[in-house]
This record gives sequence, structure tokens and C-alpha cells, in this order.
Amino acid sequence: MSLVIAGTMAFDAIETPFGKTDKIIGGSATYAAWSASHFTSPIKQISIIGGDFPQEEIDALKSRGVEFEGVDVLKDEKSFFWSGKYHLDMNTRDTLVTDLNVLAKFDPKVPASYQDCEFLMLGNLMPSLQKQIINQLPKRPKLIIMDTMNFWMDIAMDDLMETIKMVDLLMVNDAEARQLSGEYSLVKAAQKIMAMGPQFLIIKKGEHGALLFHKTHVFFAPALPLEEVFDPTGAGDTFAGGFIGHLARTKDISFENMKTGIIIGSAMASFVVEKFGTQRLKEISNDQIMERLNYFVDLVNFDIDIVS
Amino acid sequence: MSLVIAGTMAFDAIETPFGKTDKIIGGSATYAAWSASHFTSPIKQISIIGGDFPQEEIDALKSRGVEFEGVDVLKDEKSFFWSGKYHLDMNTRDTLVTDLNVLAKFDPKVPASYQDCEFLMLGNLMPSLQKQIINQLPKRPKLIIMDTMNFWMDIAMDDLMETIKMVDLLMVNDAEARQLSGEYSLVKAAQKIMAMGPQFLIIKKGEHGALLFHKTHVFFAPALPLEEVFDPTGAGDTFAGGFIGHLARTKDISFENMKTGIIIGSAMASFVVEKFGTQRLKEISNDQIMERLNYFVDLVNFDIDIVS
Repeated sequence: MSLVIAGTMAFDAIETPFGKTDKIIGGSATYAAWSASHFTSPIKQISIIGGDFPQEEIDALKSRGVEFEGVDVLKDEKSFFWSGKYHLDMNTRDTLVTDLNVLAKFDPKVPASYQDCEFLMLGNLMPSLQKQIINQLPKRPKLIIMDTMNFWMDIAMDDLMETIKMVDLLMVNDAEARQLSGEYSLVKAAQKIMAMGPQFLIIKKGEHGALLFHKTHVFFAPALPLEEVFDPTGAGDTFAGGFIGHLARTKDISFENMKTGIIIGSAMASFVVEKFGTQRLKEISNDQIMERLNYFVDLVNFDIDIVS
Repeated sequence: MSLVIAGTMAFDAIETPFGKTDKIIGGSATYAAWSASHFTSPIKQISIIGGDFPQEEIDALKSRGVEFEGVDVLKDEKSFFWSGKYHLDMNTRDTLVTDLNVLAKFDPKVPASYQDCEFLMLGNLMPSLQKQIINQLPKRPKLIIMDTMNFWMDIAMDDLMETIKMVDLLMVNDAEARQLSGEYSLVKAAQKIMAMGPQFLIIKKGEHGALLFHKTHVFFAPALPLEEVFDPTGAGDTFAGGFIGHLARTKDISFENMKTGIIIGSAMASFVVEKFGTQRLKEISNDQIMERLNYFVDLVNFDIDIVS
């Protein structure tokens, strides 16, 4: 059994209506690994960091079963940095700064020890790099999941389409699904996107939950109704980490088990937004996760009796 | 057992990205009655119409168990008329024409035969008229449900607050819940609104489903992911009609049974948007309703196994 997670490990500076951070640890692979580590280990990380990435953060991840052999360290350079400011609705944000730094040199190599990979999570990255990782695996993983974003649809559509064709499950948000398919209806968008290659599609709708599509099947998972969303950064990556962590733990890639994975991903995302950065993912216990999963059961569980 | 539904019975002219109608039958009480008639009868209607309201429409409703003793007919005047145009996203619309006509003279009287009312659905109307109806009932109904809209928050807030205090369940959309409470978070908004009087609150989120709140309990029902929304007019009223129709049929006003009611309301709303006006509500069979309810079960049903 082996789960490989590829993506960014970075610094973020975040401003929300509730507060502001200095540089804190972020990045798609960081959030996904913290989230997945509650369900499975080892997690074999593929990323690139600078000499400024804190050793204590690396040690904390290692103690959770995250392996760093696939993480390039460029000692004299800086880690990727992103800074953003959320609007009052918390659904939209402005990017203030994007310093690629080491990310501009990222040339991912899959170490020999990663090549038994059964579950591959490709966090949001340049599509050509995602493809490069898939192509280095001698044996095709049981499941390849890919996250992406509108930015690549704007500037690297050909690469993106080639990479999408190679994966089993694509994860995008509703606006991205519409952009990629040219369809406003998410049901129609899903059919068009699955025709591009992936057998499974997850459309994330933020505070409105997530949809899983497979052939003619649809599953809907709500987001938890929250009193406050403190910081939405990393919610999508945390969702993805919980989802793939559950699949890797159970080694079951059926549609039925993916439903459970989506609820688990949603629960993990509902934690991460409660504080800045990855903090909540470091604190929460299995009991707290179970309690929240039961909350999801209560939230959507209903009985249908017979209509007269 | 008796269900009373109050609201408008009117003409609409609708333009959507998919087509355009001449004057067709509409109105909050019309949609609610058609929807509820699939679950319960009689339905005692309170409304006002002009001499132009088609007799065949009245006969069709009567054949479904809708009683007209509480419907004022002003023979020489015209029925309420609304005309609107939906934007491409189908979530927003512009009102083109609002001709109050008979509605300007509406002075609702509750007939003696309606006074055994156990379930009262107050469709969207001027809040002072909704209050006038409640005040005419000698015995308080088992459940009073009230729908309203932002328009009354803008021009009749005091009346609205007085009326809200008198009902058991308020139904608003997300924007209205935010406006009424001054809270962006729907969880906080719900707590504030329930403190205004109603024990139960339904927040409708259109294509994003609906939330039911009661004390500290929350239930979420998704909307059906649809290929096309052809005409969203009346979706909220149809939802309300299915919900109260189910409660009136089962005579059970527990939170658990309201959950089922919300799923039934959502199913009915998913039908009505498939064609213009009330057409789908007239066509559908019990089997088709059951089939769609089962679709909802599949849509949200999941298993949670134990986290390692």
C-alpha cells in the first residue's frame, strides 16, 4: 500500500475579515498530507521547498508518517509564496502576491521507493508536471486523482487536456467545471468532462457542498453549515487529502466507498477553515473526527415513507 | 383535518433563456395547491382573482380537492399579473411588470368552513394580510407556516416582525435570511430569526438545496442536480406545497417528519422547473414522485465506517 501526494509546499500570507497572518505554512501538498495523515501512512510526498521551509514543520509531518524523499530542497532559495485577501463572503479572494521562487525550477522526480504507488494524488500544479509524475511510474496506480484550476485552462489547455485523459478522477470547482466544459448545467458539464477521460468527477461547490459523478450516478455531500468560516485557504486540498486518505486506508475504489470518502473529506475541510492555515489539522483527534462525521449523518439522514 | 393555503392566484408572463410565455396561470397559492394536492385533500384556498381567471383552471383545481369558498372573485376586474425575465444563470431575474389589479383590494376573510384549520400555509403576501388571516381563526392551527420576501423587509418591517412572531415556521431564501437577521453566516442568521418567534426555519438556497433549523438541530436537503432548469417560477411555492401537503397528510409535525417533508418539497420543486408554469404539477403521477424520491435517497445516502 502506498499513497503518493504531489503538490506545493509553501508559505502563505492570508487576510480575512477576521484577521491577518504573517507568513504561515501552506501549499496544496501540505494541506493534503496533514489531512490524509489522519487516515493512512506512509504518505510519500513529491514537492519542492527552499532552505527557508522550517525544519520543525518537516519533522512534524515526518512524525505523522509523511516521507520526504521526493521533496527537493533548494537550500539557497526561497519556498513558493502566495498572499491573498478574502472578500467578506469568503467565497472570493484577490491574490496579492505570487512569488514562484523554487517552484519555477520544479522538475519532479519519483524516487524508486515511491514506485509501488497504488494511490496517486496530483495536487494543483502545472499540468505538464502532473503528467511527468504519472509517466515516471512503471506500474499504473490503482487510482490517480488530479486537482487543477482555471489558471491552467487559460494558459495551458492542451497540456491540461492530455493530463486529464490519463487520470481516473478529476477534482474541480463549479466555475472550473463550467469553464472546462462550456456548459452551465453541472450535470451536462460532468458528462462532457467524463468524456474527456476521467471515469469519476468531483465538483466542489465550497459552502454548497460537493458532487461526485460516475457514469450516470450522482452523489451529493453537503458542506457543514458553519457559524464562521475563519480562513478558507486549503479547504479544497484538505478535502482531497481526507478523500484519498480514506480510499488508501480502505483500498476500495468503488463508487460506494468514494461517497464515504467525500463525507470524510468534507468533515476534514470543515475543521481546517476554523483557524488559520493547517493548525486545526494538527490539533484534531480521531474522536473529534468521528463526532463530526456523525454530525454529517444527522445533517442529511432522512426517512421516506410511502406517498398516499 | 384541514389544510388552508393563502396566497396569490395570478397570471404570469415569463421569459427564460429557453423560451417565452404569454400570460399563463401562476401565483403562490396556485403552485402550492397543485403541489400539495398530490398528498392531501381537501385544500382550502384563500385568495382573490378577477373575472379573467379561467373557469377551466378553477375546475381543474376543484377536481384535485381544492376548495374555493375563501377565494374572492371580482368579476369586473383583472387578476394580479406579474411578468419577469430570468438571467442566464436562472438564479436572478428582473421584474418587467407588476399589475396588482384585484390584489390591491384583497381583504381576506376566512369562511366558517375553514375554521377547523389544522395546517395553515401563508404564501407570500403583505404581512398585515397574513396576520389578518391568523387572527380570524378561532382556534390556533397545529402548524402555521409563513413565506415572505425581501420586498416586505424593505417596506413593511414592523408588520413583518409582528407576523413572524405569530408563526411556527418561517420560510425564506438565503439572501432574505441574511437581510432579516443582519448576519452573513446562515447558522447565525437562523439563531437570530428563531429568536424572533418561529420555532422552525427553512432557508431555501435554490439550486443549492434547503436547510431546516430547529433549536440546535440542522437538516440539509440538496436540490436535485438537473440537466436543465427550464423555468424556476413557482419553485419555492411548489416546495412549500409539497412540504405542508406531506405534514397535513401525516399529521406529524416532528422535526424528523419535517425532514421527509423537505425532501418531498424538493422533489416537487425539481418537477415544476422542467416546464413553464404549473404544467408539470398537473402531469406527474405518484409513481413518478416515488421514483424521484428514491433518486434523492441515492443522491445523499452514504455509509460511515470506523476511522482507524
